[in-house]
Amino acid sequence: MRVFSYHEVESKKAEEGAKGLSVRWLITKEMGAENFAMRLFEMKPDGYSPRHSHPWEHEVYVLEGEGVVYGGGEEKRFEAGDVIFIPPNEEHQLINTGDKVVRFLCLIPYARTE
Amino acid sequence: MRVFSYHEVESKKAEEGAKGLSVRWLITKEMGAENFAMRLFEMKPDGYSPRHSHPWEHEVYVLEGEGVVYGGGEEKRFEAGDVIFIPPNEEHQLINTGDKVVRFLCLIPYARTE
Repeated sequence: MRVFSYHEVESKKAEEGAKGLSVRWLITKEMGAENFAMRLFEMKPDGYSPRHSHPWEHEVYVLEGEGVVYGGGEEKRFEAGDVIFIPPNEEHQLINTGDKVVRFLCLIPYARTE
Repeated sequence: MRVFSYHEVESKKAEEGAKGLSVRWLITKEMGAENFAMRLFEMKPDGYSPRHSHPWEHEVYVLEGEGVVYGGGEEKRFEAGDVIFIPPNEEHQLINTGDKVVRFLCLIPYARTE
């Protein structure tokens, strides 16, 4: 068993194409999680994630803040307590439209052998 | 894309062997999530999950409240903002030792074909 605060995990600058976005890899394969990874993202006001698509899904839970998520050709507002599911291969982007940091969990699968 | 509040998902009594525990299945295979499921649990004061083990892991993020988690023969305290990883086949239990509801996300893999 592992128990730790998210604060204990290093915050790194997120990927190319993002603005004001950092990520903490909370639970990973290195810890023994073979199936999926838990990451916590922090997005500054006016920040955004890259608008892109990829063959894996996102399972998102919004912890704090508010913004807009683009996906599948539409835009929807999100706020704390919202759940977002982005299916594989759907172009998507999260944008912080508020004046506070947006914090959200985003989980992704590790590659399957099917 | 799906965007919704966790409130919109029905809260059901959790499994046998639990006390004061309810669950909302937020993201599931029925929604197109083939690899893992996101559930949100709410545990009343003095509530607990069953003490058991199974061949799949748990990835947990504590949203609110405080308590004790038992796993791998030891007990540790947890509070909001904590991350808990329970590896496969490790006996485990969460217990609400505070005076407020404990809310946590608990994600599990769907069966793998390995």
